[in-house]
Amino acid sequence: MERIPILKMGEFLLVTIQIDMHDRLALTLQDDLTSQIALHGSRGVLIDISSLEMVDSFIGRMLGSIAGMANLLDAQTVVVGMQPSVAITLVELGLSLPGIRTALDVEKGMMALQAAVQESERANGSSEL
Amino acid sequence: MERIPILKMGEFLLVTIQIDMHDRLALTLQDDLTSQIALHGSRGVLIDISSLEMVDSFIGRMLGSIAGMANLLDAQTVVVGMQPSVAITLVELGLSLPGIRTALDVEKGMMALQAAVQESERANGSSEL
Repeated sequence: MERIPILKMGEFLLVTIQIDMHDRLALTLQDDLTSQIALHGSRGVLIDISSLEMVDSFIGRMLGSIAGMANLLDAQTVVVGMQPSVAITLVELGLSLPGIRTALDVEKGMMALQAAVQESERANGSSEL
Repeated sequence: MERIPILKMGEFLLVTIQIDMHDRLALTLQDDLTSQIALHGSRGVLIDISSLEMVDSFIGRMLGSIAGMANLLDAQTVVVGMQPSVAITLVELGLSLPGIRTALDVEKGMMALQAAVQESERANGSSEL
């Protein structure tokens, strides 16, 4: 069965989206990702979309639900590698990807995730005894 | 144009192969990868094949040439995430992927790369003045 691989890197998970998403693949990805977050106690998810030349409202919604689900499992999500033309089209279409954090590349995304994780720990007071 | 994204992570590059390779895609990947190694002075390449359910002699040769090219550019290559069934088929077909280093997952692959880079530095004496 076709599925998108999820790579564990320390306390983060990395997903590279390379192929056209359709309903079932998106559902499988959501299932796999939430299971992996729960299994490893991951604190963050990086989604690389650098090979996507188009992001439509379906993908936008999918990214939004992944970020929402991850958030409920106490993990932060950052979308990385968006092509400039994709950003232009998204704004022209009026899609602003609400609730989705973005970064230019994987390295910057990791830094953003680390900052977000620390911030959420401070907010939850989980660093206190 | 269809191409496989290459993610820079520190001094290493990460490639996830998710789609069926054909001649032109393999050539594009080799071109992109060697340019990126030269551009960033990368010391290692991680190739994740966890979503491949079959590795034939074409993919085996491609992995071999990538490892060879990277080596000439002073970068080490590790293939990670091979499915157990793929390993069985490869041995049954008599394909042992000569010259290709493997590791179970990305994290173990990174450790193997770090070790390989240190070893090659010792061998080259590049840590001397």
